[in-house]
Amino acid sequence: MRIAVLGLGLIGGSIGMAARRRAGVPVRGYDPDPAAGARALELGAVDELADALPAAVAGTDVVFVAAPVGALPGAVASALAAAGPDCVVTDVGSTKRAIAQAGADERFIGGHPLAGAESAGVEHARPDLFEGATWYLTPAEGNTAGVLYERLHRLLGTLGARPVAIDAETHDRVMASVSHLPHVLANLLVAQAAGRLGGEESGRLPAVGPSFRDATRVAGSNTAIWTDIYRSNAGALLDAIGELETGLQHVREWLGADDAEAIAGWNDRAREQREALLGQALAGGPVHELRVSVPNRPGVVADIALALGRAGVNIADLALAPSRDYTQGVVSLWIGGEEESAHAARLVAALGFPVVQAS
Amino acid sequence: MRIAVLGLGLIGGSIGMAARRRAGVPVRGYDPDPAAGARALELGAVDELADALPAAVAGTDVVFVAAPVGALPGAVASALAAAGPDCVVTDVGSTKRAIAQAGADERFIGGHPLAGAESAGVEHARPDLFEGATWYLTPAEGNTAGVLYERLHRLLGTLGARPVAIDAETHDRVMASVSHLPHVLANLLVAQAAGRLGGEESGRLPAVGPSFRDATRVAGSNTAIWTDIYRSNAGALLDAIGELETGLQHVREWLGADDAEAIAGWNDRAREQREALLGQALAGGPVHELRVSVPNRPGVVADIALALGRAGVNIADLALAPSRDYTQGVVSLWIGGEEESAHAARLVAALGFPVVQAS
Repeated sequence: MRIAVLGLGLIGGSIGMAARRRAGVPVRGYDPDPAAGARALELGAVDELADALPAAVAGTDVVFVAAPVGALPGAVASALAAAGPDCVVTDVGSTKRAIAQAGADERFIGGHPLAGAESAGVEHARPDLFEGATWYLTPAEGNTAGVLYERLHRLLGTLGARPVAIDAETHDRVMASVSHLPHVLANLLVAQAAGRLGGEESGRLPAVGPSFRDATRVAGSNTAIWTDIYRSNAGALLDAIGELETGLQHVREWLGADDAEAIAGWNDRAREQREALLGQALAGGPVHELRVSVPNRPGVVADIALALGRAGVNIADLALAPSRDYTQGVVSLWIGGEEESAHAARLVAALGFPVVQAS
Repeated sequence: MRIAVLGLGLIGGSIGMAARRRAGVPVRGYDPDPAAGARALELGAVDELADALPAAVAGTDVVFVAAPVGALPGAVASALAAAGPDCVVTDVGSTKRAIAQAGADERFIGGHPLAGAESAGVEHARPDLFEGATWYLTPAEGNTAGVLYERLHRLLGTLGARPVAIDAETHDRVMASVSHLPHVLANLLVAQAAGRLGGEESGRLPAVGPSFRDATRVAGSNTAIWTDIYRSNAGALLDAIGELETGLQHVREWLGADDAEAIAGWNDRAREQREALLGQALAGGPVHELRVSVPNRPGVVADIALALGRAGVNIADLALAPSRDYTQGVVSLWIGGEEESAHAARLVAALGFPVVQAS
């Protein structure tokens, strides 16, 4: 087997490294930016570089198109044109419906690895990027060649990923809710806060409480990437916005009517839903949140993380909620599993920090 | 000077501890729940307990009403009725307009310490809870007695806080945007995700990406507290919702028209606004974000936090963005100041983890 990787950034570079080191498969790479290609070669992400896309694809069995979402339709079409009749072509884009139309060919299978969205560039590439990560595949019903699907599925497994088949529409609809809409709201929240804080009150108001910081962490994420994502998933995102607007309308009504019971019930449901969703996301059972009151001096997080690390307790998620000037605060720790969580609470308490299990 | 604290939870208990230990002022406490009162006495939050609110207030110079937001108007009125002509009464509620009306008395000054919202109960109380924390005071223009304002202001400084005067309306308007609206959106986002994931797709979709987890961290926060906050700030929250809806309408239009330029410009502005807001919030200059690629095994966070802690670099904020099953991920570190941030990046790189400065 030989594979081609078109686009040598974080994802493409990591595919190349994983394929070479974990699957022992030779990798030919291509990137329209020669400097990116050279860097990928230097870092061992590819065995050889091609000068052009068709030359990279020629004679390979699997082609990964790891271009930005906006450039994907063109790159996938070019790859299909250059690929042989027994070659499978896949992509790694964050939305899947648009590309499914562009790649309407029995040799094309859409893909989306849930990894690496937080940083960019081949410098961050590594062979274990996909270890344990879900990798969505969106084969076209009744159109994808079975032998090609099997080849891709097995290769992804060798890279460490867990391939999961899903239809493109469901994929995009869920991503609109759990990823794209939160990004839109983060942008709108900072705009609103900036508008209210930028005037006469500037400098004497708390720009950011913990809830604001968390809610806006992804505000203004990489513009090139996200403009493409928003545009390519516009339909599903518009639906998600519409559903949110309906929810806002309910909140408006409850506030207008001062309906304490409706507000309380809605808030209780949200807590249950979040716990259920978090639980779903972890194979090891529901995640529990521990809240620890700490002085926010250098070393405190280290003390806690060390104590848990030494005992083999993994911190699934962690957040600091410091006071405005970060002199003290609360550390939230999310630990998977009932026993692990109780163990973690005892370890933290033994360090002398007050701790409660919040969920 | 003698003070009374009415309501002995996290905030009331911490006020008592700080007043006793830092200001050397005797503290009389009252809580409608006798068990909470007994626990506060045991923990050293008060010198003595009163059986009833008027008995707690009698003969004191400063009264802190630390009741839940919904119970504040009644408790403040009772405190004012029991207080002498030279006694200042203040509260610690998260919204300030409603209580300003209830406490329309020259002896009343609204207050809101920005501390301790993340955990509840006197068990978490500590004398340094307010160290360095902004403590808003909302004196009524032309109505608050100067001598009482001065007394309260100086006492709060002794407790470690930074008292800042602000008009109640501005306070509530800003809080609606930076705190209450993010809580509303967190609830709506989990409801939407639960609806889309709870059906047939359940279990085969990623419930939570990092952006979703961050955006919904405060979903379903303490219902008793938050129902009161939403209701008491309904007007400002409705305004904030309205402004958000206008923003959503713009996003709808750009998506509908596939206006790449408008989307990109909006996203770029959001990044600049978030950086400006984060910078505003830290006295030590703008906060920089470092992104570190790490294997998400026990001990990694500890290694990083330790290395920074040893070098005296404080982590202002920290977030893990693990893959779905938490086998690897990216750690975002927010560090205040240009030099500190560069120093931190060098320390992290020396541990062998790839690191980039994202902002």
